[in-house]
Amino acid sequence: MQFSAGMEKPSEAPKPRAVEAEGERLVVVRESPFNAETPADALAEPISRPHFVRSHFDPPPIDATYAGEHRLRVGGAVARPLVLSLAELRATAWHETVVTLECAGNGRTHMRPLPGGEPWMDGAVGTARWGGVPLRHVLERAMLSSSAVEILAVGADHGMPHGDGAPRDIPFARSLPLDKALDEDTLLALEMNGAPLPLHHGAPLRLIVPRWFGVASVKWLERIDAITEPFDGWFQEARYVYSYTDDQPTQPVRELRCKSMIVSPSDGAQVARGRVEIRGWAWSGSAELASVEVSVDASDRWQLATLDPPLSPNAWRGFRCTWDAQPRGRHTLRARATDAAGNRQPDWPRNNRFGYGNNSVRPVVVDVR
Amino acid sequence: MQFSAGMEKPSEAPKPRAVEAEGERLVVVRESPFNAETPADALAEPISRPHFVRSHFDPPPIDATYAGEHRLRVGGAVARPLVLSLAELRATAWHETVVTLECAGNGRTHMRPLPGGEPWMDGAVGTARWGGVPLRHVLERAMLSSSAVEILAVGADHGMPHGDGAPRDIPFARSLPLDKALDEDTLLALEMNGAPLPLHHGAPLRLIVPRWFGVASVKWLERIDAITEPFDGWFQEARYVYSYTDDQPTQPVRELRCKSMIVSPSDGAQVARGRVEIRGWAWSGSAELASVEVSVDASDRWQLATLDPPLSPNAWRGFRCTWDAQPRGRHTLRARATDAAGNRQPDWPRNNRFGYGNNSVRPVVVDVR
Repeated sequence: MQFSAGMEKPSEAPKPRAVEAEGERLVVVRESPFNAETPADALAEPISRPHFVRSHFDPPPIDATYAGEHRLRVGGAVARPLVLSLAELRATAWHETVVTLECAGNGRTHMRPLPGGEPWMDGAVGTARWGGVPLRHVLERAMLSSSAVEILAVGADHGMPHGDGAPRDIPFARSLPLDKALDEDTLLALEMNGAPLPLHHGAPLRLIVPRWFGVASVKWLERIDAITEPFDGWFQEARYVYSYTDDQPTQPVRELRCKSMIVSPSDGAQVARGRVEIRGWAWSGSAELASVEVSVDASDRWQLATLDPPLSPNAWRGFRCTWDAQPRGRHTLRARATDAAGNRQPDWPRNNRFGYGNNSVRPVVVDVR
Repeated sequence: MQFSAGMEKPSEAPKPRAVEAEGERLVVVRESPFNAETPADALAEPISRPHFVRSHFDPPPIDATYAGEHRLRVGGAVARPLVLSLAELRATAWHETVVTLECAGNGRTHMRPLPGGEPWMDGAVGTARWGGVPLRHVLERAMLSSSAVEILAVGADHGMPHGDGAPRDIPFARSLPLDKALDEDTLLALEMNGAPLPLHHGAPLRLIVPRWFGVASVKWLERIDAITEPFDGWFQEARYVYSYTDDQPTQPVRELRCKSMIVSPSDGAQVARGRVEIRGWAWSGSAELASVEVSVDASDRWQLATLDPPLSPNAWRGFRCTWDAQPRGRHTLRARATDAAGNRQPDWPRNNRFGYGNNSVRPVVVDVR
């Protein structure tokens, strides 16, 4: 696998080596287009290094991307269309936020019947500090028309999607409703963890849509269009929708579902008898996290975990509790999160055709020695 | 963990060392009472060495068991009650058969909501050649009364079961309907794989009830009673029943459900690109195995696997097919068995309170390199 560094930040030297070394540690799911999970040890940290990668198509040609010639075109229903170099974009404004991204297919291999699509286990989630320009500032500068109903983001990557009735060759494109596009935290991101974007994370420019499933965060971004009709592209209407039955309308995949994951001890770990700290992350895109509870050995008694201070309103939140690990042998640990809107992780997700949004409680099995 | 050898076979020297060495390799789930899974590499073989162990109570005292003083008492509704030494029993008749035993709780950790009970993953299944005296011969010698409706088997192990309303101290006991008790393959087993029973497999004598879940195969057997009313003991009526809702009568856990497991490649394995043989085992307690189908990458196309010659009418049957493992990356493999009675593995088992009988299709995730 090749995992190359991002573009040069206008005023800084490139930092390719650390990023390459990080990428080597990813858990590869598919080589081309490149899809890989955050490894278990990286999931134990607040910032995921390396961070999972989801790609629908191969990256656009590096020479075009890396020559400093990249432009963001802003058009459609705007009074003043823009063509911005990255330096011009960067001069507009600057905002950083720590964001947890999760692929809508994360946990798909645990769904039944096993849905098609990338066979993600539990590592298609990760957290990074993203820096860039709020999309809102660019839209304001372009003078968004009142006829606009959605903002379409188009990547420079393209290809033929899989599936019945798929179009032959399309760019990766997704739209946002106006309120989400105008949210101060929705970023035209130039930096990830203080460095230029790595290639597989969308260098040199990607959209970052916090609190939504990762599909909204269009990589290799080259065009923003204000559109006057809702977008009906393949990745908007044919995929990334909750499809239940043939005669039921689909629902769009948007906000991250309320979810938690235990990261320590990790699944399959051996731990010494006695006091063990159970740690993990919990998140919800719909509302603030309200609580995380932990249950040991399939008990009906759920113990409230302590929540760590928030990293950001857009990121997972740490939780922890202690467990007197006894006796020797196999034990099961479960965590379940609840958000302020009353969403709670289910024991089993509602089955849907493409296997999205599995936020069900996932037992971790550990061996006490 | 201590895994001791069985009693001496009347005419042979004991063979403790090999069995001890085998036992060391078991995957321990609980130390006391001892419960452990067949390790993955042993599951890849027709005969499981070591073989999983399920115990409800600790083994009865070794000194009593090993002194050659063990007696099987046959009583209740019989004209001629018997007290048999093992040498006398052995002189009655001899029958051997290869049997697949599976714990009713096998695969419980994959059920949702996670049921209580031993947290078995997929290794509470195994196959051995069992040798002994058909129970039928002993019942005939004891002259079974026509008033008998069930045959009760009582182990020398005893203790306090877990659960609401559990009795304080009971022996492990289970009953069989007459037809199953009189089946030629239902054995008073003295040997496992040609050697005396190891301690944790019920030395010196256990019942072996082929084609039923393992709970029927009472270990450390000391009493056989012909009874005139159906048995209502804890392990017959309060546990080892499919319990769905409070207002529905429970169903007894009896025949092994139709099931298959892929053993090669094993879950999580790395395999080289190109031709890969997918192998596994399939079984059903209700009818002969009819077919096993395999699906790769969550495809709806199921390919018929080749069935190996049967090991025995009471054992799992090998299946295999080839797969052109392409491209590099993660792939999912599934197998589903169907028996001659039309039972087919479901994608998801019907939830039941105690988590028994999980015969659902279990995807194996492999990494092609």
